[in-house]
Amino acid sequence: MQSQSPMIKSIQKSSSNIDENWFEYLVRVQPHHTDYGGVVWHGSYINWMEEARIEYLHSIGIDHAKLTSLGCDLPVVDLSVRYHQPMQMGMVAVVRTSMKSKVSGIRLDWDYQIQSLEREETYVTAHLTLVLIDTNTRKLMQSLPSEIKNLLRTKSI
Amino acid sequence: MQSQSPMIKSIQKSSSNIDENWFEYLVRVQPHHTDYGGVVWHGSYINWMEEARIEYLHSIGIDHAKLTSLGCDLPVVDLSVRYHQPMQMGMVAVVRTSMKSKVSGIRLDWDYQIQSLEREETYVTAHLTLVLIDTNTRKLMQSLPSEIKNLLRTKSI
Amino acid sequence: MQSQSPMIKSIQKSSSNIDENWFEYLVRVQPHHTDYGGVVWHGSYINWMEEARIEYLHSIGIDHAKLTSLGCDLPVVDLSVRYHQPMQMGMVAVVRTSMKSKVSGIRLDWDYQIQSLEREETYVTAHLTLVLIDTNTRKLMQSLPSEIKNLLRTKSI
Amino acid sequence: MQSQSPMIKSIQKSSSNIDENWFEYLVRVQPHHTDYGGVVWHGSYINWMEEARIEYLHSIGIDHAKLTSLGCDLPVVDLSVRYHQPMQMGMVAVVRTSMKSKVSGIRLDWDYQIQSLEREETYVTAHLTLVLIDTNTRKLMQSLPSEIKNLLRTKSI
Repeated sequence: MQSQSPMIKSIQKSSSNIDENWFEYLVRVQPHHTDYGGVVWHGSYINWMEEARIEYLHSIGIDHAKLTSLGCDLPVVDLSVRYHQPMQMGMVAVVRTSMKSKVSGIRLDWDYQIQSLEREETYVTAHLTLVLIDTNTRKLMQSLPSEIKNLLRTKSI
Repeated sequence: MQSQSPMIKSIQKSSSNIDENWFEYLVRVQPHHTDYGGVVWHGSYINWMEEARIEYLHSIGIDHAKLTSLGCDLPVVDLSVRYHQPMQMGMVAVVRTSMKSKVSGIRLDWDYQIQSLEREETYVTAHLTLVLIDTNTRKLMQSLPSEIKNLLRTKSI
Repeated sequence: MQSQSPMIKSIQKSSSNIDENWFEYLVRVQPHHTDYGGVVWHGSYINWMEEARIEYLHSIGIDHAKLTSLGCDLPVVDLSVRYHQPMQMGMVAVVRTSMKSKVSGIRLDWDYQIQSLEREETYVTAHLTLVLIDTNTRKLMQSLPSEIKNLLRTKSI
Repeated sequence: MQSQSPMIKSIQKSSSNIDENWFEYLVRVQPHHTDYGGVVWHGSYINWMEEARIEYLHSIGIDHAKLTSLGCDLPVVDLSVRYHQPMQMGMVAVVRTSMKSKVSGIRLDWDYQIQSLEREETYVTAHLTLVLIDTNTRKLMQSLPSEIKNLLRTKSI
């Protein structure tokens, strides 16, 4: 049988012409992303944005599970999304993300562009802010654990 | 057996002290709304906001299914959410919504406040914009169908 | 403004002709429940089944949050669903549930019928099994905490 | 920046030792898949099963969007899931699927195994049945469109 889906092939193809300042994550619209209008339901993009963010952090060595084991978490405190063009069943998009103010400490800002593979179409643009909290108290922490801070400093986009 | 859940009773109780300018919709945090942090996942609030919106429109005689049968739809084009306090398993919140610029025509603006029943705590505030489109062309329509416009004019908040 | 949605009114109306052996929970199909086919996506029913179960337990005095604070949890170990008729946008259904082997100890069996308000149409039937586990070890517990067992014995359907 | 996430690398690695009779689809547990228990919520596996199914069909040349344009659809009519071991944040699993009775006509049966990458752990096993319907009437069709039938005959597992 074919072991590699076309999805993976297009990821490989697209990875050659990647922008320096953005991490790229590919998605294909599945039935569970759509609604009665035949297009992606507006909330489904929030899932994709989370996946792109987690995969980017993973790619520079920061596991979410590890963050939790260090007693901290990164909840979303602010989110804004603009919907430019609808996406339909089976379409493929690249979720591009860039973390703006990386080592400011307790606040991480992320920009998003969800586009067609060749970037002629922009479906969604978004912005999102995470803060660093102590898992037990759910209060803001004054600084990132040094282990995490170093990874963001040396390996990030 | 008990036929009425406590949820419904609290809806009835809360409905007596309702604000004139806001529609209120009650939710209880269910397991599927939460994430590994033990609190409501940030995307779950988008579902609640949709439910409050659809129930409000229904309460003034506008069915979403009817809108579709008239050949139009109301997709979200802009969304912004601020997360103030986390919500935990089993907590009850009131999703308060107010439609701001009602009969401007093709653009409907909604404000949201997600609060504790007694309103001492604000969990989330949000704003959202819908536009009216033609379902077939997915282009903006110039005005609401007169049937819908009349309902918004005479019965809305 | 109208403080009570038609949803709540229909819950009240339906609660008079309730079956003795079933707990009833009402839902209206919202856009986020549907898919490109214009009907409820097959996974959305799993959410409704959970909501009906949690609301039933709540109605007899068992809070999920309380269960967790007692160091135990009730994960699903077995699920089967039959889809008889599709549901469309805006339709209302009653999710009927009955807990079969109540005080057997560590295993709780639930039957489900998702039907139209007047029960002429059956959309979904389902069966689901929960087991009682220790939250820390995630191992099966030998018996329900006595506090919970008493509630199930005296107040359940 | 690193353009390829570790996710993609592990997909490539795993694709060399693939079983002849199963299609494999990799997933990493994201926050939106989890619940308050810190493990994957039981309904999230339904999404993964759908994604694996759609990607398999895509890999043999059958697009869901194309199916729809031919006037037919493949809704789920029967689903059963057994949950063996919980999965936690950040874990990677392979969703293995095999379509059992391929060209019987209007009924497609799918087996699922959701396992750890090296297959020492089985998290979930499941079975699911799709039927072929006419999109307009939502009635069962007597046979698959010949174009689709040929693809299933010649290219499937």
